[in-house]
Amino acid sequence: MSASRHVINESRSDVTASGVNKARYLAVRGFTAGLCKDLHPEDTVAQSMPDASPVKWHLAHTSWFFETFILEKSIQNYSCYNSEYRELFNSYYNSVGAQYLRPNRGLITRPTLTEVNNYRTHVDQHMLELLDKPEALSAELLHLIEVGLQHEQQHQELMLTDLKHLFSFNPLYPAYQESPDLPTSDTVPLEWRFVDSGLHIIGYQGEGYAFDNETPSHKYYLQPFKFASRLITNAEYLAFIEDGGYQRPELWLSDAWALLKQRQWQAPLYWQKAGNEWQVFTLAGLQALSLAEPVSHVSYYEADAYARWCGARLPTEQEWEVVARDSAVQGNFVDSEFFHPVSALPGPGVHQMFGDVWEWTQSPYAAYPGYRPPQGELAEYNGKFMCNQMVLRGGSCVTSQSHIRATYRNFFFPDARWQFSGIRLARSVD
Amino acid sequence: MSASRHVINESRSDVTASGVNKARYLAVRGFTAGLCKDLHPEDTVAQSMPDASPVKWHLAHTSWFFETFILEKSIQNYSCYNSEYRELFNSYYNSVGAQYLRPNRGLITRPTLTEVNNYRTHVDQHMLELLDKPEALSAELLHLIEVGLQHEQQHQELMLTDLKHLFSFNPLYPAYQESPDLPTSDTVPLEWRFVDSGLHIIGYQGEGYAFDNETPSHKYYLQPFKFASRLITNAEYLAFIEDGGYQRPELWLSDAWALLKQRQWQAPLYWQKAGNEWQVFTLAGLQALSLAEPVSHVSYYEADAYARWCGARLPTEQEWEVVARDSAVQGNFVDSEFFHPVSALPGPGVHQMFGDVWEWTQSPYAAYPGYRPPQGELAEYNGKFMCNQMVLRGGSCVTSQSHIRATYRNFFFPDARWQFSGIRLARSVD
Amino acid sequence: MSASRHVINESRSDVTASGVNKARYLAVRGFTAGLCKDLHPEDTVAQSMPDASPVKWHLAHTSWFFETFILEKSIQNYSCYNSEYRELFNSYYNSVGAQYLRPNRGLITRPTLTEVNNYRTHVDQHMLELLDKPEALSAELLHLIEVGLQHEQQHQELMLTDLKHLFSFNPLYPAYQESPDLPTSDTVPLEWRFVDSGLHIIGYQGEGYAFDNETPSHKYYLQPFKFASRLITNAEYLAFIEDGGYQRPELWLSDAWALLKQRQWQAPLYWQKAGNEWQVFTLAGLQALSLAEPVSHVSYYEADAYARWCGARLPTEQEWEVVARDSAVQGNFVDSEFFHPVSALPGPGVHQMFGDVWEWTQSPYAAYPGYRPPQGELAEYNGKFMCNQMVLRGGSCVTSQSHIRATYRNFFFPDARWQFSGIRLARSVD
Amino acid sequence: MSASRHVINESRSDVTASGVNKARYLAVRGFTAGLCKDLHPEDTVAQSMPDASPVKWHLAHTSWFFETFILEKSIQNYSCYNSEYRELFNSYYNSVGAQYLRPNRGLITRPTLTEVNNYRTHVDQHMLELLDKPEALSAELLHLIEVGLQHEQQHQELMLTDLKHLFSFNPLYPAYQESPDLPTSDTVPLEWRFVDSGLHIIGYQGEGYAFDNETPSHKYYLQPFKFASRLITNAEYLAFIEDGGYQRPELWLSDAWALLKQRQWQAPLYWQKAGNEWQVFTLAGLQALSLAEPVSHVSYYEADAYARWCGARLPTEQEWEVVARDSAVQGNFVDSEFFHPVSALPGPGVHQMFGDVWEWTQSPYAAYPGYRPPQGELAEYNGKFMCNQMVLRGGSCVTSQSHIRATYRNFFFPDARWQFSGIRLARSVD
Repeated sequence: MSASRHVINESRSDVTASGVNKARYLAVRGFTAGLCKDLHPEDTVAQSMPDASPVKWHLAHTSWFFETFILEKSIQNYSCYNSEYRELFNSYYNSVGAQYLRPNRGLITRPTLTEVNNYRTHVDQHMLELLDKPEALSAELLHLIEVGLQHEQQHQELMLTDLKHLFSFNPLYPAYQESPDLPTSDTVPLEWRFVDSGLHIIGYQGEGYAFDNETPSHKYYLQPFKFASRLITNAEYLAFIEDGGYQRPELWLSDAWALLKQRQWQAPLYWQKAGNEWQVFTLAGLQALSLAEPVSHVSYYEADAYARWCGARLPTEQEWEVVARDSAVQGNFVDSEFFHPVSALPGPGVHQMFGDVWEWTQSPYAAYPGYRPPQGELAEYNGKFMCNQMVLRGGSCVTSQSHIRATYRNFFFPDARWQFSGIRLARSVD
Repeated sequence: MSASRHVINESRSDVTASGVNKARYLAVRGFTAGLCKDLHPEDTVAQSMPDASPVKWHLAHTSWFFETFILEKSIQNYSCYNSEYRELFNSYYNSVGAQYLRPNRGLITRPTLTEVNNYRTHVDQHMLELLDKPEALSAELLHLIEVGLQHEQQHQELMLTDLKHLFSFNPLYPAYQESPDLPTSDTVPLEWRFVDSGLHIIGYQGEGYAFDNETPSHKYYLQPFKFASRLITNAEYLAFIEDGGYQRPELWLSDAWALLKQRQWQAPLYWQKAGNEWQVFTLAGLQALSLAEPVSHVSYYEADAYARWCGARLPTEQEWEVVARDSAVQGNFVDSEFFHPVSALPGPGVHQMFGDVWEWTQSPYAAYPGYRPPQGELAEYNGKFMCNQMVLRGGSCVTSQSHIRATYRNFFFPDARWQFSGIRLARSVD
Repeated sequence: MSASRHVINESRSDVTASGVNKARYLAVRGFTAGLCKDLHPEDTVAQSMPDASPVKWHLAHTSWFFETFILEKSIQNYSCYNSEYRELFNSYYNSVGAQYLRPNRGLITRPTLTEVNNYRTHVDQHMLELLDKPEALSAELLHLIEVGLQHEQQHQELMLTDLKHLFSFNPLYPAYQESPDLPTSDTVPLEWRFVDSGLHIIGYQGEGYAFDNETPSHKYYLQPFKFASRLITNAEYLAFIEDGGYQRPELWLSDAWALLKQRQWQAPLYWQKAGNEWQVFTLAGLQALSLAEPVSHVSYYEADAYARWCGARLPTEQEWEVVARDSAVQGNFVDSEFFHPVSALPGPGVHQMFGDVWEWTQSPYAAYPGYRPPQGELAEYNGKFMCNQMVLRGGSCVTSQSHIRATYRNFFFPDARWQFSGIRLARSVD
Repeated sequence: MSASRHVINESRSDVTASGVNKARYLAVRGFTAGLCKDLHPEDTVAQSMPDASPVKWHLAHTSWFFETFILEKSIQNYSCYNSEYRELFNSYYNSVGAQYLRPNRGLITRPTLTEVNNYRTHVDQHMLELLDKPEALSAELLHLIEVGLQHEQQHQELMLTDLKHLFSFNPLYPAYQESPDLPTSDTVPLEWRFVDSGLHIIGYQGEGYAFDNETPSHKYYLQPFKFASRLITNAEYLAFIEDGGYQRPELWLSDAWALLKQRQWQAPLYWQKAGNEWQVFTLAGLQALSLAEPVSHVSYYEADAYARWCGARLPTEQEWEVVARDSAVQGNFVDSEFFHPVSALPGPGVHQMFGDVWEWTQSPYAAYPGYRPPQGELAEYNGKFMCNQMVLRGGSCVTSQSHIRATYRNFFFPDARWQFSGIRLARSVD
């Protein structure tokens, strides 16, 4: 691992510190800025699809979040940086007011990147003043700042996935970074771990931070199941492709098959064939497909079809959680700055539970029994998306290590492919 | 209740008989024909949206089902009625072969209604020959015939809902039937029934017929909850509308709000305002809104928003099933020939669990733990739809009484409104 | 030629009589009914695209035209047949009022065909009463009746082209009629007729009936040109296809090339390849492609590309008119009941100017200098369409002989293919 | 007028010099660069609709034009700057090869603006070397360079109109320039100039540069007509709006009315109402509507409806040309750097024929009699667009004075509004 990577990892130590304080605030916010340091202003403007946002928008929106939910609420006579930003950088909070039309975010060339960075500085100055007097901060305010930091980490991940998506449209295949020295290893055999039936507690129970959608914790009865010891690799997914996986309707959900034909899917996103060789577009540009690495950028539909093809299924989110809570939160996160999944290591137990790729579960994103959204404007943060989406677990190679945990629930529509999303298998036991 | 209705009800007694035999086959198939007896040929051609099908297509497809899955498999040298029908009347069975483009079903003016009825007669003749020798029928064949009869009943319901949808586009507001003498009663108060937590068995366990998606039965832990004693009425839903329900984003799921604005929803499907009066299009034509009747033709999105508005929620399908299995399968079904929901009766316990309107649950349609689709072509019957849809329970006023049970799972996309779908509330208990 | 055809031709003699009178009214209206005599009610309901209409709608709309513009205006206390029809069967007359949504015409199953025929009878009775007192009819009223009859003839043509389009979606390939005994002949050589430059009078000048868009007649200077002696044949068009015509962007207009790729055009509408054989769907069902027949069902885009491919161009409408006015209005019209174009005969002069297929010109449909639309509601008849469409000339095999003339201007969007539209070439002379 | 403006105007003198030489090449290319001098890199990336292009793309494409059609053809062993640019910056030349998907031009963040400017420098260096040896340049090559310069001027105009369109989506209403000191005058009365009938020569006849679509010159017979002495003003157009112009279907073409309802047009593009005041977005930001200025940013549909509303019509392009050839090519062009139309001056004759706003004619864009596109790749420059578009004449306030002439034919689709396009009226004379 290179020296520069080491230095950066050190600086990340602040990010992983817990609790709301100046050092952590600066570390999280600084990490966002660091992600953009090699980008040109042009790179930060464009939007490649309505689901994705320009980097410049992410930079502004995360500051907007602190300004709107914390500064405006806690500082008397706070004069907002620019009243037009209230609408321009509101993502989806109807309770805050109107929102600039999402699919048009790429048309907002002003404020420029410099001006957005000035906005960030302005917000940081006021936030630091607040954080200078932690004794004066109410528990509610501390919680809101915590939400703001967690929110910033979520957008760090989106900045990278949105940028990757944008760059993929450019026939010059721009590289966000130089090719990292990825640790390599041979593919280890996939093994099945048995978990017996029983009544479990699902959801977050601790004292630390968790999103509302991880609560309340509740009893859940699980049938016995088997759980794959590692993620599915590119080599394994390639076998599915070569067996005609994308041409066999019996392997696909009805909606999946209709979509596949319409979009002419033939492989995961970012895969392309040059002659007989498969290439993959990565944040380090176009690369040869590495067979031992986990398959990534597949939709739920593809993950589900792959599982059916090999006589298995995807795990439920409860199964995943029960397995994951015995694993340490370690792995290949954004902190390692590979920005790319790496192959599994040999050894007993289950591997790659955290980091590398988000793992599709077969669980639709729904409220836990007794779920209540937070009061106020943040009620819209998670609850209103509890329909039509599927739960993913475990974080990815562009997630912060300090952001993820066993109970963490991510969610995307089943056709989404631009996240680092991959495949973990499970099996029912009769 | 009129004499003619009485006569028909008698004839229905055959339909409700159990087991596969000639009498039941004739009764089920005859009921389909009876539903069409007052239709003009023109009425049977048109298709009002891709989700709906022409009556003529339903008539042909249900015969195609018997021909394809039973006659072709069991009669040696069976010569199919018309080999072109194999593709034309295949709904979605990729394993059978290609399918005529679903949104174009309304363009198929030939075969005419007369010819389709000839096709039905042809299939019936061969089916009756088969059924004449029940001793020669394998268990598998008997099961397939049972599926064919259950399938026919499902399409009887769709014929009526599709026709209602079609007729609603006609400014002449055609009536499928004369106005029925609906039993009326004052609105009874909505009460809450408490159900304690516990481990339950969910799914079908009996010896009779059930669809594969009701199985396997499995243990499921339920938190305590309260369950509404009856369905939500038009009067109650009207209060939601008049409170600005359709203009308040905080009441709606994110996807729901986007859709509502795009489609400009302001009330349930078939409601329209004439001056200050609400009118509803029914199978008996345009009628004044009856306040005590259950609200119908609402989407999941509307049911969910209504529940949020009144501080409640929709039940899960497991909660619904646990309550329902203590109720007799009685109520207002297609057998009563009202083709319209009726108001609840007073009394203890829960009411309207079966019939009247399908009840949206908050459960996405997913496989039960250990679920396996049937072998062969019928694998496509239910399993491939287990994504993006929501479970409804209990049957409606156009469902056959003999077709429904406590474990029965219906499923539709959350924006669907053309079924008789309504609202049952539940509440979590802390 | 069959006896029955002969009889019908005789009855057509009334149609061709000029002037407004009972016999002609009955003949024109009766011809409409005759076109439907072998159709099933089902055939008259469906609509295959927004541009086309159901036969039943055509039957109703043409009666609506007489009712709205003549009976309601001229008969005191005329009580309209059904006031709902005013909107339901209004095509596009904003000055009359709202119109039922055009793309939904196929959803109107009621009034049934029988009821629509009753409507026609009702209108006919009142019209005949009016026509019984010709001396009482004002010039304006006589003109309106004339417009009504011309309008009916236009819809006779549309009924056949719309029905052909509808039937083409049916994999059973229904035949509207038995295969006619088409006169056949070998392909005659295409020759070029020279026309010298000069100042001409373009537009209608006579005393008989003409549409407003044919007026005013005006001076127009023509450069010298050459004009093809006959239409382009299927054999000639096939050579274009086989030379890669549909794969060579340099042959196509920019808009055409974009459309061709989007719609995946590879041949004229209704052509399909069965193995190595080209087949064509006709009103007599699926037939082998006849090489000597004029190519039909091509768009303006295809006609233009074909012309470019062979180093020629399409004529302007003025060039066409100058040539056509020296030809008798004779040819293969709907009167011959072939409902299909036939091959050219040998001989001097120009051939196939009238009938067989409409001939695309390179002239956009625009107002003649000094053009004024009619006063009143019929202002909308032609004028508001003078944009984005191209002029076609000469009538087709489904046009009435009595309806067409050298100055007649038909117009369709350049992508339209469902009319009998073909190719006449011209060339500039340096 | 400011000093800086004066300086720039001086530099423009080179642009207007005729003939291909170094000074003119540098002046034209330099003017392009000058237009971008105050833009941020971010401003040059975004694309607001498929019809418009990013400024950065315009900068690259105009260099691509010189490289592809001149440098690659005339310099032996010319090594192109970047072979990927061949596809990336090809606009629509199928004969050159594939083109990057037009609607995605806003996704190309690399090459950056700096890199694109390097590309321009590279091309300029090679072009200047060529131009250093004018005696070695073939007539064909000189012609191609001339086309390149004319092409660059066309894109200078598009850069400004595309940028205006882009900025209009930004709620901050960025100003491209400070508010110019527009010369103002009271509205002068609109008068009608009579032109008698006669046979005219239409099209370009001179020795200078003209596009192929202006040729060949040919005889054209004109009926007598009247021609408005000046453009229609904002005040006059406002009267149309206030008379319900946008709510009255009888004033609109059929296609126009459908589009107007779909897009909810209620005023010209860039007009918006703040309370009771109309404001207009300009290249100097949001401004109060100036009543005496010519109305701009109207579509053909609106120009046509306005003309109908006041009992007039739009001129044909031949009428326009016959009037214009008696006027000097003077007016408010890009050279004045107002980037906005100005009000008419009093005086005899016709005014505002050149500059200010392009004038919609009622003539569809079609080939002149005997028209032949150029040989080779430039055949695609004009000819393939001769369908579905309308001719505009006279140039605008963002056209170069040296680029326009009486025979110049611009063309846009009838719904286009983002050009500076306005209204000149004409009338037929009986």
